[in-house]
Amino acid sequence: MSQDLTLYYAPGTCAQAVLIALHEAGAAFQAQRLNMAEGAQRTPAYLAINPKGRVPALVTPQGVLTETAALLLYVAQTHPDKQLAPLGDPFQLARLQEFNSYLASTVHISHAHRPRAARWADDEAAQKAMQAKVPHNMRDAFALIEQHYLGDKTWVMGEQYTVADGYLFTMAGWLKSDSVDINEFPRVAAHYARVAARPAVQAALAQSA
Amino acid sequence: MSQDLTLYYAPGTCAQAVLIALHEAGAAFQAQRLNMAEGAQRTPAYLAINPKGRVPALVTPQGVLTETAALLLYVAQTHPDKQLAPLGDPFQLARLQEFNSYLASTVHISHAHRPRAARWADDEAAQKAMQAKVPHNMRDAFALIEQHYLGDKTWVMGEQYTVADGYLFTMAGWLKSDSVDINEFPRVAAHYARVAARPAVQAALAQSA
Repeated sequence: MSQDLTLYYAPGTCAQAVLIALHEAGAAFQAQRLNMAEGAQRTPAYLAINPKGRVPALVTPQGVLTETAALLLYVAQTHPDKQLAPLGDPFQLARLQEFNSYLASTVHISHAHRPRAARWADDEAAQKAMQAKVPHNMRDAFALIEQHYLGDKTWVMGEQYTVADGYLFTMAGWLKSDSVDINEFPRVAAHYARVAARPAVQAALAQSA
Repeated sequence: MSQDLTLYYAPGTCAQAVLIALHEAGAAFQAQRLNMAEGAQRTPAYLAINPKGRVPALVTPQGVLTETAALLLYVAQTHPDKQLAPLGDPFQLARLQEFNSYLASTVHISHAHRPRAARWADDEAAQKAMQAKVPHNMRDAFALIEQHYLGDKTWVMGEQYTVADGYLFTMAGWLKSDSVDINEFPRVAAHYARVAARPAVQAALAQSA
């Protein structure tokens, strides 16, 4: 099913989590980099693919998919032999989606108030006030991840690496830009190092460098 | 699997989407209302259930689940005969998750900048600037839903009602509070009326009134 996949991505975005998942899955795919600094996500050609004007977007034989958590589920479901999600257990799969949804709707949003504050207020002073609170909100989120979600597990879901790990790795990689030291969260930092050491992750990072 | 489910919810929140899904599924469950105006979501007893201090939370025989999109997938997967999600098709299931993820991480977040602006800035003037932009952002999101996601379909996923419909219904129900007239989006308004007419939805609304 994966021979005709094309991932639209940009370095430094959450699309990195999907790039990692595709490498972990051993999927046959093409990667199309968008130069977002030059507004490539706003061209008519790209808006015809993804009217949201964002990355990631994954072109599949059946149509285009967007939203990182949905793409990660799709990659896992179309490569079931790679066990990138607990597909046979509705509770565990919901736990995986819970974690990924938390990253998408709390962690990513908390971070986005620094580089993308203009989405939520036009006033420059308001944007600065939002940016000032980003380290606080990122610390709150990663404290929850450290204690509630990661604990003493090797991977987010336990003994089995899943698409959630590359997604957490991607979000944790943003902490420094948000003026938060990853070492404030020793389990997150150790998890980050474990993910970074995986060959598929190194391949994904080399591709998006 | 559903006999020991307890949903923690509060009226007017996104937990309504899960309440609707449980009624649509014919699930055996208890509903526990939290008085959020009195801070019930911040008590030690509730934080032991959901350390995020938010709703919804679903207590299952295997543990607690949070995040609306994950709970909706869980309800659909544990009641497969009700066809509340396209469980047999990885692409269609990813489309459903894409839509639900968009509601969670864009629509809900756009709305939340009105009642919950303090999450993202401590400064009162900044909070007012965020609140001022909420109608604009909700209009942008519902224009995309109207044209890109809903189109001329009966339900979000086509001919089959899914958990996405009750979720969209819940978000569309917030438009008025955000000073946006749902009739600016005729397809969304017609969809809202179709969902409202369903017996399971009426039962859920009666329970949460």
